[in-house]
Amino acid sequence: MSLIDDLQWRYATKKMNGETISREKLDYILEAARLAPSSSGIQPYRIFVIANRELLEKIKPVAMNQSQITDCSHLLVFAAWDGYSLERITEVFNYTLEQRGLPQDTMDDYKNNLWSLYEPLGKEWHAQHAAKQSYIALGMALAAAAEQKVDATPMEGFDNQAMDKVLELEKYNLKSTAIMAVGYRDAENDWLAPMKKVRTPKEDFIVEIA
Amino acid sequence: MSLIDDLQWRYATKKMNGETISREKLDYILEAARLAPSSSGIQPYRIFVIANRELLEKIKPVAMNQSQITDCSHLLVFAAWDGYSLERITEVFNYTLEQRGLPQDTMDDYKNNLWSLYEPLGKEWHAQHAAKQSYIALGMALAAAAEQKVDATPMEGFDNQAMDKVLELEKYNLKSTAIMAVGYRDAENDWLAPMKKVRTPKEDFIVEIA
Repeated sequence: MSLIDDLQWRYATKKMNGETISREKLDYILEAARLAPSSSGIQPYRIFVIANRELLEKIKPVAMNQSQITDCSHLLVFAAWDGYSLERITEVFNYTLEQRGLPQDTMDDYKNNLWSLYEPLGKEWHAQHAAKQSYIALGMALAAAAEQKVDATPMEGFDNQAMDKVLELEKYNLKSTAIMAVGYRDAENDWLAPMKKVRTPKEDFIVEIA
Repeated sequence: MSLIDDLQWRYATKKMNGETISREKLDYILEAARLAPSSSGIQPYRIFVIANRELLEKIKPVAMNQSQITDCSHLLVFAAWDGYSLERITEVFNYTLEQRGLPQDTMDDYKNNLWSLYEPLGKEWHAQHAAKQSYIALGMALAAAAEQKVDATPMEGFDNQAMDKVLELEKYNLKSTAIMAVGYRDAENDWLAPMKKVRTPKEDFIVEIA
């Protein structure tokens, strides 16, 4: 199977059957998200992995009572930094340099340039920028789930502030961006399962300048 | 090779060798992006594919003179809708319903609900929301390139407004969000090629609530 086959197989599962996915498959999906690239390699996001049924029951009303929240095996909550700071960026770069066996000042010029660009843009821009990065990781997690034949539903239909409260994201200086339910489809009871996958036609989607 | 192997193999190539990738591989990468999911299936983004050398020379100074802009095989410019409108959403939903052989009013309640949520959020929020969706497609394109052993560099280091001007995106009601150079690495002359891939450690990246 190729990635294209996997992407053709997957769909935003509306009804899951409550079965649990294996630890191995869960770890695989999370690892793909962890390996996603991000702007300047900062990875300004984290993933909360929720299997606790009581907590999922609490999240359900925050997410428009969508059935996948409690019928899934695990709920992944993507949460992005609520803002950049020189300290946060420095911490990431220092770790990278340490791992590469390079002196801690190697990226100072790059870092100072980056911060002189980011700082004036303000916290709201920072949060949006960080959120966008988390969507690349969401894409990788969705691709990985499809490869593992695990069903997955990316969802934005939830109250972000209420989600942040339930998960106490403020104490991590994070804000929820998107959620992804993983599990197995209940194909018989999922209205979307038999429907044709529809995408913007190639000739509209792509503009080639040769 | 699995997706994880592919993601370990890939890196944000800083120096490409000017070789052209095959039509087949290019189409494969674009198809993965086209198959990416998006909020409510709206796909509020397009991809501009640029092979024209003169145009790439024009883009280079807009993108901090990064060498990949002209050493790549093709430059993919992701561009998102500059805002949602009831008309734009209706067009997408009507096409979906037509493709599924369903009556054109099937999604009216869903659509009106969605628009009552989106409309008051304003054009700036719309553009940010659409931009985020394009990052899922960027993730899929990066995964597909890695699977095809095509090097790829996702880039945000460019002047979005200047890029929009060069590509006349306003006439499409689009705004550039991210670019992705595809081609082949010039490993000998790429400082990043021999470096260890560094990511946030798993224990920091994932928060599990069992």
